This record gives sequence, C-alpha cells and structure tokens, in this order.
Amino acid sequence: MPAKKPLILVTNDDGITAPGIRTLISIMNEIGDVLVVAPDSPQSAKGHAITISEALYCDEMVIDKNAPQTEYACSGTPVDCVKMATHEILKRKPDLCVSGINHGSNAAINVIYSGTMSAAVEAGIEGIPAIGFSLLDYSLQADFEPCKPFIRKIVKQVLKNGVPKGSVLNVNIPKLPEKSIKGIKICRQANAHWEEDFDKRETPMGRTYYWLTGKFVNEDKGEDTDEWALANGYVSVVPTQFDLTAHHYIQELNSWEFNEK
Amino acid sequence: MPAKKPLILVTNDDGITAPGIRTLISIMNEIGDVLVVAPDSPQSAKGHAITISEALYCDEMVIDKNAPQTEYACSGTPVDCVKMATHEILKRKPDLCVSGINHGSNAAINVIYSGTMSAAVEAGIEGIPAIGFSLLDYSLQADFEPCKPFIRKIVKQVLKNGVPKGSVLNVNIPKLPEKSIKGIKICRQANAHWEEDFDKRETPMGRTYYWLTGKFVNEDKGEDTDEWALANGYVSVVPTQFDLTAHHYIQELNSWEFNEK
Repeated sequence: MPAKKPLILVTNDDGITAPGIRTLISIMNEIGDVLVVAPDSPQSAKGHAITISEALYCDEMVIDKNAPQTEYACSGTPVDCVKMATHEILKRKPDLCVSGINHGSNAAINVIYSGTMSAAVEAGIEGIPAIGFSLLDYSLQADFEPCKPFIRKIVKQVLKNGVPKGSVLNVNIPKLPEKSIKGIKICRQANAHWEEDFDKRETPMGRTYYWLTGKFVNEDKGEDTDEWALANGYVSVVPTQFDLTAHHYIQELNSWEFNEK
Repeated sequence: MPAKKPLILVTNDDGITAPGIRTLISIMNEIGDVLVVAPDSPQSAKGHAITISEALYCDEMVIDKNAPQTEYACSGTPVDCVKMATHEILKRKPDLCVSGINHGSNAAINVIYSGTMSAAVEAGIEGIPAIGFSLLDYSLQADFEPCKPFIRKIVKQVLKNGVPKGSVLNVNIPKLPEKSIKGIKICRQANAHWEEDFDKRETPMGRTYYWLTGKFVNEDKGEDTDEWALANGYVSVVPTQFDLTAHHYIQELNSWEFNEK
C-alpha cells in the first residue's frame, strides 16, 4: 500500500442510501480517501446500461455529517456513475473502485445482469483496479458485519498486487456468521441460468401485464465454481473479464463456408 | 437446414418499428416462421438490463397486414423481450434468435453496452443459437440493402452448423455498397474504449444536468480484430461468450495471500 492514501471510488446499484454501500464506505474510510458517486434510486439488474436518451443529474450531498467522504447522488445507472466520477468529478482515475455491497448474490450468471458488477467492469474498462462485493442476503436489514474482515483482506491484496489486466474481481459473501465462513476461494463463474416464470395479471382497466419472476438453476456440479464455494461456506472471488471474445471458437468458425457462393 | 421451417425469434433494441428490424424480419420470412418480440420504444445502450421493479406490457400488434410474421411489442428491455418470447409467448425455445439490424456499430467494447447484443446473449444463455446484426450507420435512413446477402449467408451457416456452445455471434456490417464489401471475416473483439466527455448544461430552473457524450478510442492495432475488419471493408463476425471468468488469472490469484492472518 502506498504511503499516500489511495483515492477510492465507491458506487453500487441499490442506491446511495442502501445499508450495503454505507458499510462499504465505512470500511474504505479506514483505508483511503473516499469519493462516493452512486445512483439516487435503486438500479438493480440494470446490467451495463448507460443513459444516452435522457439528461443526467449528479448532485453533491451530505448523508453523514460526521463522515469524511465526499458524496454525489446520480440519476443514472451504476455505469453512468463510474463515468461521471472519472470524467466529470475527478477528471482523473481513482486508485481503486469498489462497488456494493450488493444486497443479494451476483454469483454465476447473475454477474451479467448486475448493476453492481457492471460498475466494477466499467472501471476495469477504464483501467482502474475494481472489485464488486455482494452479500447473499436480499434483505434491507441484512447483517453486513461478517463481510468486513473479508473485504479488508481483499482490498489490501488488490492495493498490493493490482488486478490482473483486463479483469475485475467479483466477490460474493455467504450469509453466515463471520466465524462460520471458512475463508476466501478463487473460483470460476458457475454455468447456471434463470428459468423465468411470468406472473400474469390484469390492470383495473383490464389490460394484461406481467411481473418477471424466475428460479435460479445451477446445473454446474464443479467444485471450482462460485456457487460451490458459497454453498460450502467460502467467500468466492471470480476474476471477471470484459473481452467477450470466445477465442477458442475462432478456428472452428474459420472452417465454416461463409464466403462460398 | 431442416425440411421443416425453423422458428425464428426476431428482436432488437431500436424498437419494433425501426427500419433495421423491419429489414431483418423480411429476410427471416424467406427462411423460416417468424415471431417478433421487440421493444415498444428505443432501448439502445440498455446492456443486459432486465425489468424487475416495474410491470411489463407485451401486446400483439399488426405492423404490416401483408406480412406473415406474428409480432408483439414489449414495454421492457431487449433481454426482457427474449425472456417473454421464450417463457410466456412460445413456451418453448425457437430454433434461432436474431437481433437487429442495429442502427450503429456493436463492434469492440460496444458489445457490452448493446441492447441488441444483450438480447442475443440472453438467447445464448437459454441455449438458443443466436446472432446480433449491426450496420455501421446510426441514421434512421440507413440503407440496409447491402446487409441482406451477408445476413442470409450467416444465418444459413448457423442453421447448418449451430453456434458453438456457450457463445453467440456478433456480426457488424460496414457502411458500404454491397459490391465494395470484401467478404466475411472471423475476428476477435478489438481492445477499445470510450473517452467520455460530459456536456454540462443548466435547466431553465438553474439546475445543472449533463449529457453523456464521448469519443471512441481504438488502441488495438491487431489485424485480427473486428475494428480492423470493418475499417478494411469486411463484415466482422466475433464469437461472443457469456462465461465472464478470466480463467487465465485463476492461477495467479491463487498465489495471493488472501487467507493470511
């Protein structure tokens, strides 16, 4: 860790007042100088959305008078928050970006829907070491205390080692008392998916509408996955990349007859 | 191609009335039975967002009385459209999902922000062969005619070969007359990014707001990238995956001292 305090950008997708981000801010205040740029309202499941058809608001605000961080609430998505922090507020790159602590899992395929992780990925695209943290508890009353020592350890290692180029870290923490958590495990993303079930209803005016609901299905039995680690009491850490090329298929596709007459 | 006509799901992110999707529907009607489930309004840059905090509407509509396809306009994102088509309207998997033709590039890092590509990726997650098509012309008056023979060739090959497991195809088409396009090239995603520039303004009431603008920066000089192919007159095809694990970093991360006291 450098002698000079690192500048840490904190964001999330549950909104700037969510208990998860308040916990993360308090931990980051122990480690560095903290800038918070987070959505002014919940932005869960917004994926890597950015706001291009609407104007963005981004206002400085004080949520905790006794805390040292500077905070901005932004009307946009988590990814907008990272862009706004880097290119408008700071006009330079922070030393680290942490996103979360998300209320709910971002393991397995959830990473792709997650606003929390998309913020971390956006920071990664900009070349900023970045980590997304999630606790496997959707409740607004979730107990974030057991997360703290693991977040401290992971941030300390990232500040020491950097994050491997072209990737960010996806950290999920099981809903367990601290002493029941067995440690930190490096994992791959489990091959799982959601089976949707639309809850079909009718408005008082007689128009059909739907709520998106679903069941998470993990068919991946590997013991090297994030789902396995979490089910077995470990904090999972998945290095997550944003080069989406399936490099191993390029040779196969080159054998297809795309250019035949 | 099976003797029985394939069932093809068509979606996009520019909205159900955009010229790009109307062109794609007309090509797919030559090849199979077509179901259209597309957003009722523009959903560009919505990434892999899904709608979980609002109700979804999805209404059957007739846009072209003389065309054979069935069409639904959905109030949600492109990813919602794919979920709605598969789990509510069809209650089975289509044989192919095509998304687009997007008005504008989805090459390089644009893939991660793109609603068009996120719809294709969602179909891929569900195990449906899927292709996203984009034309490098943002205009609503774009000429989609030159795209047609290339889209026919690629769809024909996908119906013959399937799509490699765990991936979908990201197809970008240069803005050129058909005879100037040199062919189809299998590529990797160029390592590029956006440099944001926020256009800061004031509302008539005196509140500051911003428009997100930016400049696309490609520092990747590789001749195997989608950006190179497009700049040199080729249609680019990138196999795009949704296992975001940076597998090559797992060993390195295992050497970190995460679990030291």
